[in-house]
Amino acid sequence: MQNHLQNDDTIVALATPQGVGAIGVIRLSGLEAINMANAVFHGKDLTKQESHTIHFGTVRDQDKVLDEVLISLFKAPSSFTKENVVEISCHGSNYVIRQIIQLLIRKGARPAKPGEFTKRAFMNGQFDLAQAEAVADLINADSEASHQAALNQMRGGFSEEIKHLREELVHFASMIELELDFGEEDVEFASRNDLKQLIDKLLVAINGLIKSFDLGNVIKNGVPTVIAGKPNAGKSTLLNALLNEERAIVSDIAGTTRDLIEDEVIIGGVAFRFIDTAGLRETTDTIEAIGVERTEAKMKQASLIIYLFDLADTDAVEINREINKLENAGVPFLKLGNKLDKAQGGMVEKLQQQHPDMLFLSAKDPEQVEKLKERILELINLDKFKRGDTVVTNIRHYDSLLQTRNSLMDVINGIDNQVTNDFVAMDIRQSLHYLGEITGEITTDDLLANIFGKFCLGK
Amino acid sequence: MQNHLQNDDTIVALATPQGVGAIGVIRLSGLEAINMANAVFHGKDLTKQESHTIHFGTVRDQDKVLDEVLISLFKAPSSFTKENVVEISCHGSNYVIRQIIQLLIRKGARPAKPGEFTKRAFMNGQFDLAQAEAVADLINADSEASHQAALNQMRGGFSEEIKHLREELVHFASMIELELDFGEEDVEFASRNDLKQLIDKLLVAINGLIKSFDLGNVIKNGVPTVIAGKPNAGKSTLLNALLNEERAIVSDIAGTTRDLIEDEVIIGGVAFRFIDTAGLRETTDTIEAIGVERTEAKMKQASLIIYLFDLADTDAVEINREINKLENAGVPFLKLGNKLDKAQGGMVEKLQQQHPDMLFLSAKDPEQVEKLKERILELINLDKFKRGDTVVTNIRHYDSLLQTRNSLMDVINGIDNQVTNDFVAMDIRQSLHYLGEITGEITTDDLLANIFGKFCLGK
Repeated sequence: MQNHLQNDDTIVALATPQGVGAIGVIRLSGLEAINMANAVFHGKDLTKQESHTIHFGTVRDQDKVLDEVLISLFKAPSSFTKENVVEISCHGSNYVIRQIIQLLIRKGARPAKPGEFTKRAFMNGQFDLAQAEAVADLINADSEASHQAALNQMRGGFSEEIKHLREELVHFASMIELELDFGEEDVEFASRNDLKQLIDKLLVAINGLIKSFDLGNVIKNGVPTVIAGKPNAGKSTLLNALLNEERAIVSDIAGTTRDLIEDEVIIGGVAFRFIDTAGLRETTDTIEAIGVERTEAKMKQASLIIYLFDLADTDAVEINREINKLENAGVPFLKLGNKLDKAQGGMVEKLQQQHPDMLFLSAKDPEQVEKLKERILELINLDKFKRGDTVVTNIRHYDSLLQTRNSLMDVINGIDNQVTNDFVAMDIRQSLHYLGEITGEITTDDLLANIFGKFCLGK
Repeated sequence: MQNHLQNDDTIVALATPQGVGAIGVIRLSGLEAINMANAVFHGKDLTKQESHTIHFGTVRDQDKVLDEVLISLFKAPSSFTKENVVEISCHGSNYVIRQIIQLLIRKGARPAKPGEFTKRAFMNGQFDLAQAEAVADLINADSEASHQAALNQMRGGFSEEIKHLREELVHFASMIELELDFGEEDVEFASRNDLKQLIDKLLVAINGLIKSFDLGNVIKNGVPTVIAGKPNAGKSTLLNALLNEERAIVSDIAGTTRDLIEDEVIIGGVAFRFIDTAGLRETTDTIEAIGVERTEAKMKQASLIIYLFDLADTDAVEINREINKLENAGVPFLKLGNKLDKAQGGMVEKLQQQHPDMLFLSAKDPEQVEKLKERILELINLDKFKRGDTVVTNIRHYDSLLQTRNSLMDVINGIDNQVTNDFVAMDIRQSLHYLGEITGEITTDDLLANIFGKFCLGK
């Protein structure tokens, strides 16, 4: 990652979503951005205006007016990409937007590739690779937890931690390299014991990050959840109770209604993604059916299984038998007694005694469903996240951390087996490489293409 | 329409389309817009910044960062609504957008109704009603012609013409009103002959505008077009030839692909909307089928009927018989001989002699389809539009013009029948009322609600 000169290849794209809206914003970035905008703009001379100012006028194709627009100017390096950037805010008509982009292309701009603005920002040192990736995560975030994780990462929290680890390792690496320069003289600038201690310290930190991915992954993608139970235990009622409340909250603010992912529920700021268990639902009229291959696969995808017992039509003996069979099958699950209002006298007390972790409620009563939500949140254990600890949410980072760990283990093994310095140095360099991949000190064209190709156009 | 004070009711809405994109723009308008933005913004003190400047910082809900944003400031009256306006350019995440809007609502902003920003611009004298309506037309424009018509109207061309007519009439109205003040004295400030001459002049202009609506309507909504002919005459081939070319042009610029209205083709900048003639297509295996009620209705919707004759499998006698029957049915149509490449020798020459307006081509040959396009454009006669004459595209304006015409006829009849001054004055006032409705000098809450309610949210 180094400071590049401003790109004389000027790119253009629509930065706002496709579709008809009040306004659309077209973004230009590159050395010629301001000149190109000026060439089609009728109003003030844009080349003579300050950065961070807005100008009203018309965009014209020769003498034909295409639209009345507002032009925002950002002069290098005070812009997102650190290049000259112009944002043209025009009427949100597909026709107008297409005409203006086509006109700018005729004036020499090139249609931007997906993520190309963010890639330029990265190449020009605006932020590191992990931060750039967080921009995409932020745009796709649909719950408080995923939003907060992306924002923390975008604002550099995660990068700081990785950079700090890397710097410590770099120091030792340089010592070892120095020893190599002395060749046969058998000096030891870097104490092997100190190095091992450092690596142990690094491994603790890296193991913590690797472990945090379990949480980070569910924060980012939602907690895969299954609601199971015999027919008529109240599975749909429970799901609807969870879904409906969310929908009510969402439709509260006119015009901001979001496209709900089917069967996704936000509880306490965390997304719970209900896996389609059509198969499961149909085959679980006997507990034995959990053994069915297809259903087992569904269960394995789930981080959380809520198993409903029907307190109205089942007695305590039957429920105990059901629980035993499930526990014998080795499937961890949350025991939930439903239809509390219709339970036979004494039954709940008895079950509670036998299963202290069992929850009882009536899925029809919103207040009682709250109890379930609290329990669910306890189960996924957000404390780490709430403490502000760094959480790994990106599978690429997770992979790099695993590789780093392997290389660091190799270093320790090397020292223990008294291999020569050059092998130790190589393993340390390898660790540095993997850590550097996370923040982008080390990149390849393929890696960048892969990361930025997943961005939306105009970003 | 008068100059209102700045509204202390500050409104907020997303101004860009719904959906995930690189950026979203949230718009605030009203007295408190800048203060409200400042209350959630962490960066420079926005209340101390100049109009038309842009500021980078974070939006925070207490100490929780919601996003990194750019804030654009527009101070009253130098804004779209002539009120204080703030545009918050944030990451295009539904979650972020919803959080920021909810936060601003908690700070006292109110969710804007559809079109409310434009309504405020109108109420505050930024433009008149016809211009405000053109904003919505501009956003929905999907062809060069409809875009140009909307833009001309938005930039005031049509309003000028109406205002000019109205001013002339106001002058005479005041004369007549003056006469009324003199009551029985029988003075005549306004010569009845001059008044009749003026009204004749006005009627010529208004009739011209009324007539222009035929063109304006097809410019705005597309020319309703039917492709007819016997089975295998090449109807689908022709439609596909017209559609495919358009699609190729449209998908030329990555990321700006528009949602094509099914079976809409832009020819020479004008939209041609192909009416679903499934019924027609199936029943026209004999010309008599055109008489079928359902099919006739389709035909009546069409401004343009392209009737295909199969030159390969039909001889000149049969084609002549077909043409005669169609002409007897009183349906105007464009005669198109298809499959020119397979026509029998001498047949085309013969038909051309009998029907000089008949066109011959092979629908499979793109170059030959061009000939058809040229002819179609001739038929809808865009000259008036191209000359820059004012064209009425809005059915509300059309209705008001018809009403104005009726009232003006009443004035003339009144004068001819020597009715008393107060009746003449009343009819003139009525004409002024109808003309005033077009540009919004005369409005009612219902009218405004009706017009702005059709706008999209955030406009």
